[in-house]
Amino acid sequence: MNKRGFIVPIGGAEEKVRGRSILRHFTEICGGERAKIAIIPTASSLPDSGPRYEEVFKDLGVQEATSLPFESRADCAREDLLSVLREADGVFLTGGNQLKLSTTLGGTPVSEILRERNATGLHVGGTSAGAAYLCEHMIACGEEGPTPRPSSVTLAPGLGLTRHVIVDQHFRQRDRIGRLLTALSYNPFPVGIGLDEDTAVFIDANDVIEVHGTGGLTVVDPQDMEFSSMDSARPDDPVCVIGVKLHILVDSCKYHLVERTASPAVSRS
Amino acid sequence: MNKRGFIVPIGGAEEKVRGRSILRHFTEICGGERAKIAIIPTASSLPDSGPRYEEVFKDLGVQEATSLPFESRADCAREDLLSVLREADGVFLTGGNQLKLSTTLGGTPVSEILRERNATGLHVGGTSAGAAYLCEHMIACGEEGPTPRPSSVTLAPGLGLTRHVIVDQHFRQRDRIGRLLTALSYNPFPVGIGLDEDTAVFIDANDVIEVHGTGGLTVVDPQDMEFSSMDSARPDDPVCVIGVKLHILVDSCKYHLVERTASPAVSRS
Repeated sequence: MNKRGFIVPIGGAEEKVRGRSILRHFTEICGGERAKIAIIPTASSLPDSGPRYEEVFKDLGVQEATSLPFESRADCAREDLLSVLREADGVFLTGGNQLKLSTTLGGTPVSEILRERNATGLHVGGTSAGAAYLCEHMIACGEEGPTPRPSSVTLAPGLGLTRHVIVDQHFRQRDRIGRLLTALSYNPFPVGIGLDEDTAVFIDANDVIEVHGTGGLTVVDPQDMEFSSMDSARPDDPVCVIGVKLHILVDSCKYHLVERTASPAVSRS
Repeated sequence: MNKRGFIVPIGGAEEKVRGRSILRHFTEICGGERAKIAIIPTASSLPDSGPRYEEVFKDLGVQEATSLPFESRADCAREDLLSVLREADGVFLTGGNQLKLSTTLGGTPVSEILRERNATGLHVGGTSAGAAYLCEHMIACGEEGPTPRPSSVTLAPGLGLTRHVIVDQHFRQRDRIGRLLTALSYNPFPVGIGLDEDTAVFIDANDVIEVHGTGGLTVVDPQDMEFSSMDSARPDDPVCVIGVKLHILVDSCKYHLVERTASPAVSRS
């Protein structure tokens, strides 16, 4: 049986012209020049998001990069678009609004194909809103600031490729540790993954993640949390959270989501 | 390989003295008199919730019914309590506050044992808060009223025995269809299950559910939803939702969660 494909959340604003280490590495794992990459621009309200990523992937040498305009729920049954999805080696979800992704793709053949094929080898990446949507528990929206408060985050069901992490993006740029802690203090099961801009994690089939990019990855591990007051906090109260483990990882660091162990960067050769 | 055990959400206020058809049927599937039933009273703030259910199950003929006082996250590593959980044929979660369940049990050996053992045959039931907690996506809290609004519901990660349903309870009694529709309009993947009081569904290993009890079951199937405005609605706006299928089912009706088909009551013989 084939292994699960990579799951690749990106923190937004990834470099598209120079360096491009994240998109280059995504292209490589998909098969390089011979890769077939499908782009889902549904999150975006800009009409050129899909064509723009077609250009970016073609500049990286990919011969087949195709944007699939799933704009309505009816589009998500279009066989001409679904057939491209079924043949792809990698799928890339653009940024925008993650609720456009979940309300448009949720419960349609598109999300079914993405889940089934990722389980047997399709690589799925997404940036910003596209990153938030990849997980089972998606941060739909929220407020900025460092202190967790019940009102500071809204969770919704996402695509569901993994339930082991909750992703937040534009992390340092938008001061989001409070809302990520809030999301985790509801149920200290998943690991919180706060992605800075131009920073990605590549989650492999064994749930080991590797960091790529120029920013930091904030890992919030609540496994040993001793106490959370989330069951009694009012909406705007600060929430008491005791015993959370924190790691800040950078390019080429690894983290094992099952064993909950981090290892520092080793030079890539 | 053993089949998944039953998942049994109950809408609250189930009959404990006369009739008791729900608790009686739960006892039967667990093995009747020889069943070992463990009770988790964590959701409740009343000290006698656990002992009370011990009495109720013993009145139904169960010889071993044991309340496990997981009051803190540290309790969730107590080997004397976990060993009872590992030997149980059925586990019953009382009502109270579902956030006490997720904040106390989440990410501890208790939730791990419940998930792993349910996958291979342990039957897990819960009433009210205990019902809400069983699912992957848990309605943590919300407001009453018929119209879906983004602010009307808060979702959080639950125990995760199934991602195919989102459960709401005390359904008709507390006018909760608006918040269930809100939960579904974020992502029309799961089926909404609104349980009246003294009403339960028994979800079998094939994801076929059977209704037991004196109230109604409201099934909200969003699979053919044509449109949801949840991606653009402000917190207190009414949300536009087009194309949701609704069923009201009663005692002994069935519903197939995968095929999305309902069948009327047949007399039990």
